[in-house]
Amino acid sequence: MRILVLGGDGYLGWPTALHLSNLGHDVAVNDNFARRGYDPEMGVESLIPICTLEERLTAWKEISGKEIKSYVGDLCDPAFTHQMVRDFGPETIVHFGEQRAAPYSMIDQAHAVYTHTNNVVGNLNVMYAIADTDRDIHLVKLGTMGEYGQPNIEIEEGWIEIEHKGRKDRMIYPKRPGSFYHCTKVHDSTNIEFGCRIWGLRATDLNQGVVYGVDTEQTKLDDRLATRFDYDGVFGTVLNRFVIQAVLGHPLTVYGNGSQTRGYINIVDTVECIRLACENPADRGDFRVFNQMTETFSLNQLAETIRDAFPSEVTIDHVDNPRVEIYDHYYEVVHTALEGLGLKPTLLSEALIDHMFDVVERYRDRVDPAALHTGTVKWAQTTSELPKTSALAGA
Amino acid sequence: MRILVLGGDGYLGWPTALHLSNLGHDVAVNDNFARRGYDPEMGVESLIPICTLEERLTAWKEISGKEIKSYVGDLCDPAFTHQMVRDFGPETIVHFGEQRAAPYSMIDQAHAVYTHTNNVVGNLNVMYAIADTDRDIHLVKLGTMGEYGQPNIEIEEGWIEIEHKGRKDRMIYPKRPGSFYHCTKVHDSTNIEFGCRIWGLRATDLNQGVVYGVDTEQTKLDDRLATRFDYDGVFGTVLNRFVIQAVLGHPLTVYGNGSQTRGYINIVDTVECIRLACENPADRGDFRVFNQMTETFSLNQLAETIRDAFPSEVTIDHVDNPRVEIYDHYYEVVHTALEGLGLKPTLLSEALIDHMFDVVERYRDRVDPAALHTGTVKWAQTTSELPKTSALAGA
Repeated sequence: MRILVLGGDGYLGWPTALHLSNLGHDVAVNDNFARRGYDPEMGVESLIPICTLEERLTAWKEISGKEIKSYVGDLCDPAFTHQMVRDFGPETIVHFGEQRAAPYSMIDQAHAVYTHTNNVVGNLNVMYAIADTDRDIHLVKLGTMGEYGQPNIEIEEGWIEIEHKGRKDRMIYPKRPGSFYHCTKVHDSTNIEFGCRIWGLRATDLNQGVVYGVDTEQTKLDDRLATRFDYDGVFGTVLNRFVIQAVLGHPLTVYGNGSQTRGYINIVDTVECIRLACENPADRGDFRVFNQMTETFSLNQLAETIRDAFPSEVTIDHVDNPRVEIYDHYYEVVHTALEGLGLKPTLLSEALIDHMFDVVERYRDRVDPAALHTGTVKWAQTTSELPKTSALAGA
Repeated sequence: MRILVLGGDGYLGWPTALHLSNLGHDVAVNDNFARRGYDPEMGVESLIPICTLEERLTAWKEISGKEIKSYVGDLCDPAFTHQMVRDFGPETIVHFGEQRAAPYSMIDQAHAVYTHTNNVVGNLNVMYAIADTDRDIHLVKLGTMGEYGQPNIEIEEGWIEIEHKGRKDRMIYPKRPGSFYHCTKVHDSTNIEFGCRIWGLRATDLNQGVVYGVDTEQTKLDDRLATRFDYDGVFGTVLNRFVIQAVLGHPLTVYGNGSQTRGYINIVDTVECIRLACENPADRGDFRVFNQMTETFSLNQLAETIRDAFPSEVTIDHVDNPRVEIYDHYYEVVHTALEGLGLKPTLLSEALIDHMFDVVERYRDRVDPAALHTGTVKWAQTTSELPKTSALAGA
């Protein structure tokens, strides 16, 4: 199958491209290297050193004999996006190519707007490229479990049967996203569902849990194939950050009372979920939603799991929560669709955490302790730094 | 009350500003004249001649003795938006300042993206201006009944109590918007609801039905105070268009089988609804939604009403539907909140239609028959005209 992976140079896009290529699919990747650009902006770096995309592709060819084509460009450029889709002629487009950090989107007005235009406009351009070129292309779009918020009823997979005043309908599951980043994923879902109705697009929206893990079967084959591993307060996800804090002998920093419960997934399951979605496409006109997660944990459970797994003493600190979140909430999620297609979940285990400890240990000298300071972006505070304008004029 | 009306030069923004000013509120208007710019782009014009904003404000001062301040600038410019909000110091911001035509948003990729960035980014900037300046400012935001789509259950006012698997929650009413324009209004609602949660904003989201009518008590006072009246296939709303077709002796063009049912509201009720929302603000942190409509009609009912009211023979033509819509659907809407605040609906009556006939008759020589050709923008077709790019390069 010809599969185009957008954002194919990123934390998950790159291992996904390798996984699909390894299985014999004809894979191309697209990236504009925006994620690499956030590093100098934020003054952080991936803990695990990563090669350039060109070096990665060369290494993969050397090791596997397989070629992955690359398209360097910005999805916000519609002409580029159209030409790429026409040139490669994919059967499936896997769309990881968005700004994916909630704290980054909450830095200030400019970052909220950037996240909106980058994600929503990029996704619209991908939709138009499909509609203009070949409406049979299956769009596999990465969303997030954070679109749903924390409802007091079970979270279904994107749709819900509602009975109301004696009548029934199958409706879009209501969303209450937790950051402007999460808002953009809700907007994308709204737009794609509309595209399925008017253009007969076929789409799978993958509402992914928080991802953890450092490598996959393919990225482990050679240091040049490694994927990035972020531990900073903006791009680092929580379990990865706890592992680093443990290895460095820092306290694990839990936001607030730690009862916040979320869905999680291992990176090796992410790449497998994408394969399953690609190989079992949605029907024409179908807006299909899967909850791409395997386990739920509260922050406290995660912190205690890491503490108990680590060979030395680890302390847990409860710090002021920079986010606006609710505590002690109900959280039950239906996530049977991907398992129905064949996913065998890789659950969080001591062996897996030990492996993460080992990898972090190997690169511990690269840790910048300043980057570990978490929670510098505060949800409730706004501090828009705006240029002066001379545009304020009466009619 | 100090009220800033964004989009205050438009079809509804201008009469709203006059209505609020007339009642003694201290009103300012903002506009970037985007709506006036769409006219030459589309090759159309308002049937009723309209003065410049400066002439309008001068006339209003002459006639009423009241001053309306104006801020000319683009809400997509964050510095302008912040400075305007700081300078005027409103207690309420009424936000009409968005691209509001579904067909315009469906012209092609560029117009879909423009509608997204113009509406969503502008609204984000307004939200940040409030959050940075004064979180007590009440945001009265214009949305549309078209956000809901045509669910098979009753449409509640923005929120719905859901009982699911023995548990309950009050949730955002699920949305299935009918065009990219309608999608942007859903996105705005998502963002504003989030802003209420994290910043404690107070917001009223007004999901407005299709507006009809040519004037209000204030715009009638002087020709220089008239508001625009659009009859073309892109910006004209359906009842207004039927009135013009009847006066000109053209057949009324009904899309498809005409069973599509929607909510409608008279322009004189619109301005009154805005007053009621302003004078009865939402609580801090409250995302309040009102369905701003008074009656439901199918297209067939509307066409027959106009035909029966017109003194001469009128024919009704069913034409190919350029939109993707469902027919013969259930449509029941709760719209009691604004009536609870005191709205006395002005229902569609023969006297009212006769008045519209008279106004259109007065300006019939200004009608461009070519502009009446409806349905030139087709939902299911995409024809993105894109520049060539030289950006297609491998890594």
